[in-house]
Order: sequence, then structure tokens, then C-alpha cells
Amino acid sequence: MAASVTDYLRAHQERIVAELIEFAGIPSVSTDSAYADGMSAAAKWVAVHLENAGIRKVQILPTARHPVVYGEWLDALGAPTLLVYGHYDVQPPDPLDAWQNPPFEPQIREGRLYARGVSDDKGPMLIPIKVAEAFLATEERLPINVKFLFEGEEEIGSPSLEPFIAAHKELLAADYVLSADGAMWRVDLPSITVASRGMAGLEFTLTGAAKDLHSGRHGGAVANALHAMAELVAGLHAPDGRVAVAGFYDDVVDLTDAERAALALLPFDSTDYLAQTGAPATFGEAGYTTLERMWARPTLEVNGMWGGYQGQGSKTVIPHEAHAKITCRLVPDQNPADITAKVARHLEIHTPPGVRLSIRYDHHEALPYRLPTEHVGLHIASQVLADLYATAPVRVRMGGTLPVSELFQRLLGIYTVFFSFSTADEDFHAPNEFFRLQRLEEGMLAWAKFWEMAGIQE
Amino acid sequence: MAASVTDYLRAHQERIVAELIEFAGIPSVSTDSAYADGMSAAAKWVAVHLENAGIRKVQILPTARHPVVYGEWLDALGAPTLLVYGHYDVQPPDPLDAWQNPPFEPQIREGRLYARGVSDDKGPMLIPIKVAEAFLATEERLPINVKFLFEGEEEIGSPSLEPFIAAHKELLAADYVLSADGAMWRVDLPSITVASRGMAGLEFTLTGAAKDLHSGRHGGAVANALHAMAELVAGLHAPDGRVAVAGFYDDVVDLTDAERAALALLPFDSTDYLAQTGAPATFGEAGYTTLERMWARPTLEVNGMWGGYQGQGSKTVIPHEAHAKITCRLVPDQNPADITAKVARHLEIHTPPGVRLSIRYDHHEALPYRLPTEHVGLHIASQVLADLYATAPVRVRMGGTLPVSELFQRLLGIYTVFFSFSTADEDFHAPNEFFRLQRLEEGMLAWAKFWEMAGIQE
Repeated sequence: MAASVTDYLRAHQERIVAELIEFAGIPSVSTDSAYADGMSAAAKWVAVHLENAGIRKVQILPTARHPVVYGEWLDALGAPTLLVYGHYDVQPPDPLDAWQNPPFEPQIREGRLYARGVSDDKGPMLIPIKVAEAFLATEERLPINVKFLFEGEEEIGSPSLEPFIAAHKELLAADYVLSADGAMWRVDLPSITVASRGMAGLEFTLTGAAKDLHSGRHGGAVANALHAMAELVAGLHAPDGRVAVAGFYDDVVDLTDAERAALALLPFDSTDYLAQTGAPATFGEAGYTTLERMWARPTLEVNGMWGGYQGQGSKTVIPHEAHAKITCRLVPDQNPADITAKVARHLEIHTPPGVRLSIRYDHHEALPYRLPTEHVGLHIASQVLADLYATAPVRVRMGGTLPVSELFQRLLGIYTVFFSFSTADEDFHAPNEFFRLQRLEEGMLAWAKFWEMAGIQE
Repeated sequence: MAASVTDYLRAHQERIVAELIEFAGIPSVSTDSAYADGMSAAAKWVAVHLENAGIRKVQILPTARHPVVYGEWLDALGAPTLLVYGHYDVQPPDPLDAWQNPPFEPQIREGRLYARGVSDDKGPMLIPIKVAEAFLATEERLPINVKFLFEGEEEIGSPSLEPFIAAHKELLAADYVLSADGAMWRVDLPSITVASRGMAGLEFTLTGAAKDLHSGRHGGAVANALHAMAELVAGLHAPDGRVAVAGFYDDVVDLTDAERAALALLPFDSTDYLAQTGAPATFGEAGYTTLERMWARPTLEVNGMWGGYQGQGSKTVIPHEAHAKITCRLVPDQNPADITAKVARHLEIHTPPGVRLSIRYDHHEALPYRLPTEHVGLHIASQVLADLYATAPVRVRMGGTLPVSELFQRLLGIYTVFFSFSTADEDFHAPNEFFRLQRLEEGMLAWAKFWEMAGIQE
């Protein structure tokens, strides 16, 4: 009898690390056309390794910019189909002189592999490829059906992914997504990301007179657009920090007592947080903890506001125009278009006398995301992590958006289970990005276990 | 017996216009060093014409930048001494292609002399020189003592005037200033400017976190400096438009019923005003007319306010810094330092939680100015204008500051009577500036009458 999947992975660990070093050495920076060769080399590297693993129909599928690498293995009759997601592109490596080793010459130091993109997302995305290889080498089959989708534009906002998914709905059809991207919250605590906030936004302008007026000649006669702006923006929040827009909270799914209790158990230290951010105090909606406000409550933030004279010294004008940009972070089941309309209505109703309001609606929108607590993939992930780390994983949320989960949900109607083995402290998007090699091993064992359990579960 | 002063002025009107054409042809632009020759030529032209008129001790007195032209005639024993003020520098002529004639090649069209600086202030300042010439040519004496002070930096904010006056207090000592600068409010209504507003200001910054934070990761956790700024700025005014700073109105001398009645009689059309400024409505402190608010009530204006992202599209940050510049227009007897301190105190008390306040105090300050209603010069000016135009002159105020009157009051302890014959519609500071030649004649008759009455009055 052949070795077990676990034995295979352990026996080949050294070779797999060598492969990751090779992969991380390819400079696949998606944002910079100077790295075009690196991008196509990385896509090819992924395709070759999928084929070598025994995955079928491996294709490098073109998009408007960087290609998607696709592959599948669909012979597990009756078993569920998972769509495995990851990305082979990386952030730019600048500033170069802040790196201890050149960013595309990976180096192992104290159990960590240092290289640009090794944690985000080359290490984590290599895991399911190697797990597939181990199953096919030892058992000649996978316990479930798998489709692999590795994109090359995650670090530039995935502009081609939406049209790609829309054009390949049948090819990508699956029971749910298992994402190799994302990151665990803390290195000492297994976690699963189960929700992210959505986004809505707009920009608006208040206009008084036809031009800036001399504050001596005209002061007292006409409205100052900045005063009107201050009044309007101040009125967007109540004194207790709640958003004062009518209906803003209508569709918010309140946290259950159990969810609040679970959040309260998470290790979050306000003092540390304030030291990190440099803020003099935490601040926000009354009646919620800071973690609740960041993860599970919607916000309305003015991202920019300006008008009048900003140069040195003084200029005695009554500014005739004032501008503001607003974005809202949304939670389930708030809808971006509905929230945008409610904010706009608030602005219209509350525009002070003496100025005119105009609104621009070209802001990016994203739906909030939440994996149902009863989702099978969540149960499996929880159990696998609990077994592996001998402690129940915590369920965390993202304050930001997770655009891919929103895309998969909207276009394919399926949820995404985040099952990444990178950690939020691994300096992705910064110099000296690293990936813990122990996590590579743990991740492969965990993914193998996940697939086995998913194959039985159905 | 020699001709009367009036006959002399009428007889020499054509020659005087020719002199004004010559004077206005000298390009004395004070702000631009390319016009240095024009500046010294203009100073010399003034000095020569003072001497030719019979004025004594004519001197071109250097300052840090452009010289002051001084002259005096002090043989009217027992009569009061007037300090005559004007300026020989002019605004830059740009944009040149908007002029019908080259700005320094004066041209008469339909009773108007077109040239840069002819209304502001070469025409008006030539009047007292020619009146002195007429008295000395016909009567060999002036009815009063006169000191002439013509500066060359009015159009650049008179930076050298304060040190000059401070250094020549004895030379400039007088009973009051009679200013050839300033302008009548309307061409069809004689007016005397009796008050101007002062100024105080400061700049302040609110700081939250140490840097802009991602609104996804951190939204809901810390204060947004722009929200705090909006709240703080909105609180500077009450809903009824009054300034909400404690003690702001303490030292305001309220308008008397008679003053309000006089202001109410002035021709001010809100519809015209809104058409001019493009504002959708007039706006300001409740309980006062627009003209009262512009001229006789103090204001607090935010001249600039900014923070966060101002570029195209959106950037989802929680801005950590917000800035604002404030200036106040003051009325008698408000004191700039006192008002600055009160505004600062308001900001300190009302800074919202979660942000820190810092204030910069380097703004320009100016005292408000008001000519007492019982001032002898005001009485004479009123009577002269009433006789000349067969209608009582209206008393108007300036919404802006009149820096020279403030300087004369502060450094010499004397009031300024504005007695200019330019009109606010003569496009000074714009292309095609002009001066009505009829005003030149009327102005000379009026100044002659003024001096005669001032000589008798005492």
C-alpha cells in the first residue's frame, strides 16, 4: 500500500519548500508593466505545477490584463465541488533598501521564508496544489471535486475577475469557494474570517456665490460654503456617534448575544491599539465595543473635505465652494445602493440655506459579506483547525471589504470559506514579507483533512 | 484783484487734465520690480508738481521699498493742520489685451479718462495739489495748514508706511487726515465713509491618530479628524447666524436707531446684489439687514478648511488631521487680540473627544475704525458735498479694513476723513480703469471749499 497523504507531504516537505523558493523568486508584480515577464513566468509556473500534480484541463486563460490559471479534477462522483481561489501576483517590492535580502531572492531565517509575495499569496496558494499532488500520488484520486482559479490581479483590485467570472459561470460552478487567500488574525490563535463589510460612497459639493468673495466687502451678506459644509457634515452623526441618516440601520442584522459573547472573548487590548495607531482615544458608536464597531457595525466616514484657501498665511475670502467625499462601511444586510440613496436624501434635506447641493455617484460599491454560521465549509474548517491546534478557532470579521467573496456570491451564488495559513503579522505589502514554514506544513495537513472531511460529509 | 480760486481752477481745467494724462502715463506699478523706473519717475513727478504749486519742504523720503513724497505749507497761523493722504502707485495692468487703450497711454472717451491708476489714486490725489496751487496762485496763502503724504506702496499693503509714520510722528503731526484715497459708494449719490471693520484671525489643526488609517480596518474605532472639525466649525455659529463664541459681541457698539434708519434709506437692492455675486440667497446674523451685517456687524468666517483625500475618485481613509483658517471682521469697539483669545478659548472648550487641538496665531490683526459723528471734518465734508450735489451725502461704512486710517489713529492719534472723488464703479484693479473728468472738476471745487471752511471753523 502506498504511503498516506500525510506521510507523502511530510516526506516531500523539503522539496516543496524548494519549489516555493523557486515560485517566490519570480517577480510577478501585477501593477508594473516592467514586470510583464515575471507575470507570464509565474502564470506558467503555476500551470506546470498544477499539471505535474495531476490536475486536468490546465489552462492559462487570458483576460484584459493578466491571465487566470485554471485547472480541475472532477472525478469524485457524488462528492461536492470546491472552487479553490488564490493569486499569483504580488505587491511591488519598494522600498528595496529596507529589505534584508533582495525581495525576489528568497532567504530562510529562523524558520521564516523571506520574499515578496511569499505570504500573500504564493505560500498559501501552493498548499492546495501540493495537497492535490499528494492525494493523486498516493490514492490516485481526490476526496472531492476541485476547480482551481488563480488570478494575477488581486493586488491591483482584480479588475478582470468580474468579467472573467461572468463569462465563465458554468466552468466555475461549485458548491462553495475555499480560499487560499486571506490571513489568520493572530499567529497564536487559529481564526476563520466569517464576514466582511461592504461599501457605498458618494462625493458632494456645496456652492454659494459664483466665486470666492472678499470677506471684508461681503462678510455677513452671503453664506460661507464651508460653514454650510461643517453644519451638514456635523449633522451626519448624532452626538453619541451613531450615523444620523434616516434609515441607515434599518437592514443591519444585529449581533446575537452569542456573537457578542464570542467577540468579547477575543484578545483585543485598547491600550495596544491606541499605541499602534497613535490615536488619543478610541471613539465611535455608543453601546458597542471597539471590536464590535470595527467588525460588525456600519460606519459613515468623510474621507476628504476641503474648500477655500489652503496655502500659507491668510486669504480673507468667503469660500463659495466646499467639497466632501464620503464612504460607508456596510454590514449585512445593508445594500450599497440603498445606503447611497439614504445618505443623498439626508444631504438634500439638511443642506443649509444659502448654498446649493450637487452629488456625484461614481464611487465604488461592494456588498457586505457574511458566511452563514450553519455553512458546512465553516463547520469543517472549525473542526480541522480545532484538531490541528488543539483549540477552537475564533470567528473573526473583516472591517474592510473582501471583494472576491462578494464577486463569487453575486455572480456564482456561492459562499467563500477563507482557509489561509498566512498570518496578519507577516508584513505583506511591506518590506521583509515572510511566511512561517511551519504554517506551510500545517496548512497542507489542514487542507488534506478539509478535503477528506468534505468528501465524507456530503 | 486776482481771480478767485474757483475761477482759477475752471480756467486751468484743460491744463490740469493734461497734467493728469501725463501723470497717469507713468507706469508706477509698485508690486513689480520691472516698473522700478516708473515708480521713481512718478515720485519725482509728484514732488515737482508740489513744488510748482508752491508747497514747501518737498522731499522724496526713502523707505525700505518705495519712497514717500512729503511737502507742507504751515503758515496759516491759528488754523488747523490737515494731513493730506494719497498714493502714486498703481495696480498691475494685466490682462493687457482686455484694455481698449494701452493702460499707460491715457485716452479720453465720453468724458472719462481711461488709464491704469487714474481713478485709484492719481486723479483723486492730484486734486489737493491743484487746489493748493490755485490758493497760492490767487491768494498767496492756504486757508489752513497742510502736510502732504503720498506713499508708493498702497497697492501692496503699505508695508513701509507703519515704520515711516512711527519714525516721523512729529513731522506728520496734524489735527486730522484728509484722504484723497477711498471712493464714493455710488456715482449718483454723494457719500462719506465713516467706519471700517477690523480683523483678527487664527489657524487651527485637529489631530486624531498618528497617520491616516484604512477606513475598513479601523472604521468605527477612532475619531475622524474631519468629523471633529465639522462639529467644531458648525458650533462656531448659532442656527440664527450669530457667532456662538462666548463674549464675541461684548464690546460691539450697537447701531443707534438713527444710524439704522439712515442705513435703511440707502439704495441697496438684494436682487441686484445676488445677481452680482451669484449667491442663491443673502444669509447672515438674524435681526439685521444685509447692509447692517456687511458694514456694522462683526463676522467670523472660515476662509479655508481641509483634510483627507482631495484627489480624483475615492480613497478610503480615516483622515487623522484637519485644518481650518479663520478670520473675523470686527466692529468698534472689538479688540483683535481679545477676539482671537475668545475664539481660541471656544475651540479649546469645544474640541470633540478623540482629537487634539493646536492653534497658530500668526494672522494679521487690524483695529476696527469709526469716525465720531461729531468730528469737525465730517461736518465740513457733509456740508461741502450737500452744497455741491444739492443732496445730503449718505454715511457709508466699509466691510473691509482701511489700513491707513487704522495706522493714523494708532500711531498719530488722529482720525481720517475720506474725501475722494473716485467712484466704486470705475474699474480700479480691473482693465479699462477710468476716472470721470467731471469728478476732477467737482473734486477741486469741493476740496477748495473744504479748506476754506476748515480755516474758518476753528
